[in-house]
Amino acid sequence: MLAPEFITSDWFNADNAAKLADYRGKVVVVEVFQMLCPGCILHGIPLAQKIQRMFPADQVAVLGLHCVFEHHAAMTPVSLNAFLQEFQVTFPVAVDAAGEGCMPQTMEAYQLRGTPSLLIIDQKGELQAHHLGQVSELQIGAEIATLIASDRNALRADAISETASGCEFGRCTV
Amino acid sequence: MLAPEFITSDWFNADNAAKLADYRGKVVVVEVFQMLCPGCILHGIPLAQKIQRMFPADQVAVLGLHCVFEHHAAMTPVSLNAFLQEFQVTFPVAVDAAGEGCMPQTMEAYQLRGTPSLLIIDQKGELQAHHLGQVSELQIGAEIATLIASDRNALRADAISETASGCEFGRCTV
Amino acid sequence: MLAPEFITSDWFNADNAAKLADYRGKVVVVEVFQMLCPGCILHGIPLAQKIQRMFPADQVAVLGLHCVFEHHAAMTPVSLNAFLQEFQVTFPVAVDAAGEGCMPQTMEAYQLRGTPSLLIIDQKGELQAHHLGQVSELQIGAEIATLIASDRNALRADAISETASGCEFGRCTV
Amino acid sequence: MLAPEFITSDWFNADNAAKLADYRGKVVVVEVFQMLCPGCILHGIPLAQKIQRMFPADQVAVLGLHCVFEHHAAMTPVSLNAFLQEFQVTFPVAVDAAGEGCMPQTMEAYQLRGTPSLLIIDQKGELQAHHLGQVSELQIGAEIATLIASDRNALRADAISETASGCEFGRCTV
Repeated sequence: MLAPEFITSDWFNADNAAKLADYRGKVVVVEVFQMLCPGCILHGIPLAQKIQRMFPADQVAVLGLHCVFEHHAAMTPVSLNAFLQEFQVTFPVAVDAAGEGCMPQTMEAYQLRGTPSLLIIDQKGELQAHHLGQVSELQIGAEIATLIASDRNALRADAISETASGCEFGRCTV
Repeated sequence: MLAPEFITSDWFNADNAAKLADYRGKVVVVEVFQMLCPGCILHGIPLAQKIQRMFPADQVAVLGLHCVFEHHAAMTPVSLNAFLQEFQVTFPVAVDAAGEGCMPQTMEAYQLRGTPSLLIIDQKGELQAHHLGQVSELQIGAEIATLIASDRNALRADAISETASGCEFGRCTV
Repeated sequence: MLAPEFITSDWFNADNAAKLADYRGKVVVVEVFQMLCPGCILHGIPLAQKIQRMFPADQVAVLGLHCVFEHHAAMTPVSLNAFLQEFQVTFPVAVDAAGEGCMPQTMEAYQLRGTPSLLIIDQKGELQAHHLGQVSELQIGAEIATLIASDRNALRADAISETASGCEFGRCTV
Repeated sequence: MLAPEFITSDWFNADNAAKLADYRGKVVVVEVFQMLCPGCILHGIPLAQKIQRMFPADQVAVLGLHCVFEHHAAMTPVSLNAFLQEFQVTFPVAVDAAGEGCMPQTMEAYQLRGTPSLLIIDQKGELQAHHLGQVSELQIGAEIATLIASDRNALRADAISETASGCEFGRCTV
């Protein structure tokens, strides 16, 4: 499924007009979190920061999506801003727009069940993986690398088929 | 030094009229924290919770002291309340009263340098230890137990001297 | 470089006639260890076991290579056998054959500098990566997955070039 | 119960004529381990080393007791010697003397059920605590400190009661 565009009320570490679609062409790893969720602080955010350090920025983009579905009054933009500074989060963080009920709108569009959730979106914008809770670093490393390699593969296959389909010297090889 | 009374604007998990002096007679362990301080979340609060579970409540009281000296707008009572719920903090937490500068009043009275800090106050209200940053559990366990044992010792010594001084009416009081 | 064949005096969890070449066609992850090396016990062996659990056995083979270069009398086959049982190591473990000096023969052939070392060999037997000490799980997961994907890619490219090479003698079979 | 004297076949980091009784007057913490027991390597030995670093050597003695009850051929003195070097164990380690069955003799005398076990013996040689498996550092710190303080207390109480007992038969000797 094509990953739905984020519906945001705010962005940190990015222009307020930022969009998920801006990152098309890269593997996009989205750390879905709430700033007062213990599992997010202990596992989710540190893993996202490791991914950001490990993979080249021109191949993998790490984004945060702040999905507040409880304690709304406690997790305001002012608080989130302080949180991002204190935990040294430097990747772009989108604030999911409030919905009609507890659940914010992007969270609803993705049918997420809680935080932390980790979404992996491929270079064409397809949602490829969705993990809830603590996840294995080996597995996440493998999933990201598989998407990077598949894309390279696609490019190479394209290259090959270009060559293959190259009509040269009066001959058409396709 | 006698541990200064807390100057508070609020208490959680306790009556708003609570005072440090209410815990006289027990060893009092005070976890000084800010809710958005990473070291507090990773080390300070979990250690305080372990102490609370390990030692009998009639001998050791664990208290929190929320000392906000940065990001004041982000760490309001509403936010702290959500934090305490999410991190399952059930011990009483005093909110240090704002001062004239950044530093809140109790923090200034104790001349604390940052968070997390761990204070250990004996049964008579004397400040016995003051640790900044991550601390050894072996050491904290030893410090608390030493105060418990010294007090028991003092009681026993009192008992003995009472007995000894039981000589009255012209008899030997030693 | 083509990964040199192991020179072994023994194998555990495998037939004694086992060879590295038997695993051609899979990504081969080799945990080079000494049973009394703290870093091997704390990091190397547990990582190898996680890799064994994470990746399908028909794509990734995990092997141990026991390279004794110190305390030779203490790390005999009898001791190693007990170690493998106690630490629940179920992957095949080759015992590197003693050399003329301290260094065993396979360790010398690979020019390894110590333990734990992690070798990653691709499906064609080429040594692709060589890590000394504690390594990032994200990175190892990525490296293994890249080799799996590249191989799949190679297969697909082969398929394409076969198709492409179907054009012969001025005829195009595609 | 008075802690039974160790029945040993060997000592490391101590004279071969060493005895448990040599450490009378100090709190004695005994780490009972087998060199190939995972829980001993991951938890038991590191905790013993922390205790050794934390408490003054004139108050607390840390000893190891190597109790081999399985894989006897794998855990010989030669292997243990290498293990102690590799894991930087500098406290005295007694090798429990083989028994008639699997169980060595001191292990049988103490009726230990497995490794790691942690024994705490007071200054008079009384066995005060006996823990099997992973233990809380807070608790161990508290138990050791309680014995240190009780001893100090006893000394002080003795002083007081000597004084007090100076008054007999209507006479006051003080």
